[in-house]
Amino acid sequence: MRGAVIHAPGDVRFETVDDAKILKPTDAIIRTAVTCVCGSDLWPYRGAEPTEQAHPMGHEYVGFVEEVGAEVTAVEPGQFVVGSFATSDNACANCRNGFQSSCLNREFMSTCQAEYVRIPNAQGTLVATDGVPGEEYWPGLLAVSDVMGTGWWAADAAEVRPGSTAVVVGDGAVGLCAVIAAKELGAERIIAMSRHEPRQRLAREFGATDIVAERGEEGVARIKELTNGIGADSVLECVGTAQAMRQALSSARPGGDVGFVGVPHEVAVDGQELFFSHVGLRGGPAPVRRYLPDLIERVLTGRIDPGKVFDLTLPLEQVAEGYKAMDERRAIKTLLKP
Amino acid sequence: MRGAVIHAPGDVRFETVDDAKILKPTDAIIRTAVTCVCGSDLWPYRGAEPTEQAHPMGHEYVGFVEEVGAEVTAVEPGQFVVGSFATSDNACANCRNGFQSSCLNREFMSTCQAEYVRIPNAQGTLVATDGVPGEEYWPGLLAVSDVMGTGWWAADAAEVRPGSTAVVVGDGAVGLCAVIAAKELGAERIIAMSRHEPRQRLAREFGATDIVAERGEEGVARIKELTNGIGADSVLECVGTAQAMRQALSSARPGGDVGFVGVPHEVAVDGQELFFSHVGLRGGPAPVRRYLPDLIERVLTGRIDPGKVFDLTLPLEQVAEGYKAMDERRAIKTLLKP
Repeated sequence: MRGAVIHAPGDVRFETVDDAKILKPTDAIIRTAVTCVCGSDLWPYRGAEPTEQAHPMGHEYVGFVEEVGAEVTAVEPGQFVVGSFATSDNACANCRNGFQSSCLNREFMSTCQAEYVRIPNAQGTLVATDGVPGEEYWPGLLAVSDVMGTGWWAADAAEVRPGSTAVVVGDGAVGLCAVIAAKELGAERIIAMSRHEPRQRLAREFGATDIVAERGEEGVARIKELTNGIGADSVLECVGTAQAMRQALSSARPGGDVGFVGVPHEVAVDGQELFFSHVGLRGGPAPVRRYLPDLIERVLTGRIDPGKVFDLTLPLEQVAEGYKAMDERRAIKTLLKP
Repeated sequence: MRGAVIHAPGDVRFETVDDAKILKPTDAIIRTAVTCVCGSDLWPYRGAEPTEQAHPMGHEYVGFVEEVGAEVTAVEPGQFVVGSFATSDNACANCRNGFQSSCLNREFMSTCQAEYVRIPNAQGTLVATDGVPGEEYWPGLLAVSDVMGTGWWAADAAEVRPGSTAVVVGDGAVGLCAVIAAKELGAERIIAMSRHEPRQRLAREFGATDIVAERGEEGVARIKELTNGIGADSVLECVGTAQAMRQALSSARPGGDVGFVGVPHEVAVDGQELFFSHVGLRGGPAPVRRYLPDLIERVLTGRIDPGKVFDLTLPLEQVAEGYKAMDERRAIKTLLKP
């Protein structure tokens, strides 16, 4: 079969790779319906994370079950399934606590930009839809498997409540999905921090009531202006840089909450600053599995349409161009069709 | 009048100081009923915080109202009052959000180891009891003004819930009060980390179900052993050192919560570690005012007796010995009687 392989920064190739095979009785194999490129895939693509040897890429997927291992009874061949970038048995103590992305048997997906994908922990990871959804829903369901689930987690971790004020730091696909989540969870005011006109437009379409283009101290000052000088109840940090974390912590009111969902790169939080801010901080890889049934329902009923974050669609074999367009900010997020 | 003044590390003197006077119409003056020495007073006493010039000490108090400023109507001369180490107008946005220790008009108390004390923001800060409580309740009410309020905040910030497992890091007066709080909030298992036999005994009396004497990696291993390998739901960090914070973050389960209430000294939290731990983190100076009515009630009905943390009582004029005994760990906490 064929799939995407990164060889070095800037060098992603679509080439022949090992066929996806059942390796454990808890595995399933799916035929990819659609997959995509993630903002976090750009870290190695840009050399911000090392690529020591060539390896497959991709952790987002929806597809058709091809084959299941002997212990997998929850799904069966032919079904359309949605999963998560973090697989989970959905049975261990951490899963039962709702933190499936800290499952004791967790394996992160990493080979999804391919024609077929092996899904470890299939029993706990995959959720089948009722019948095969129309193709128009595939992008939304694909978003649920990562960016929409992560945006939801940002809003959940930041304790967005009905009537509250939320700030979203980051206008990538996760940040835009975080706007959807804040709106669905009832935030009355949603301030999206974005400097890019097409993203500002999508943020507004998703429910943002205000846009702040400024960053750093000016950005914080604008947020304070918009929040009676106090700061926001909830801040959703969807980037992962030290600058974004500073922005987030400085934008929350005393007693407010920051949910941080961008994998932190060289971020350190000063204990005394956090202390005197009274801000609550929680982050991590999104426990997408917890939200899957609800988010699938919201997509299939048309209540939300996170699939709109895909503003470029390419055949899977043009995956390299998909990376390039996102790296050059010509695309928010690239959908790939096998 | 006379009060405690620190001149240099290890050098606290009881001497003549300026009389407490109404400076603003929002002030009140109280005659000190009892006051005490705080664990945080030991930071400058030990030279861990600089003492650039001699200054008064003390931030814990209960007493009798002597005089009120023109704008103070909530309390009147003769009443017995309990307050907080952080004064608040109890009216601004942060106060209304329940974070009175981030009041926009906050002034921290700093002159309470004295015969009389000026209380800024008296209207919002002081809570009068019904009549004058018997002297046997004064230590408990004094504890409420700081260590018990802070222990409660630790449990609140760490989201202690009925049936949960809580770990308390630190066996000072705040840590011991945090055990009381965890029990009152319904924790089923309360693990106190303590190496000192008299403190272990008091922790058990307050509700600890397990004692862990180990620290560092061994301490974390013991906590994991006691929590099915997962970690605790809630960890109450009541010290403020980097070691204690590491202990706390490593003892919480994925998705658990750390409440940190010791003022952090040289503590930095690594963003990526916090991210992958899934642990929620919130701290700060305790919003004691939020809890005052409830905690006063619990003390006066005999439901809790945080006054037991005072294991040394001295006349106020012997305040220097009070510091010394705590510094040398001969006392958990020193009560001072004018």
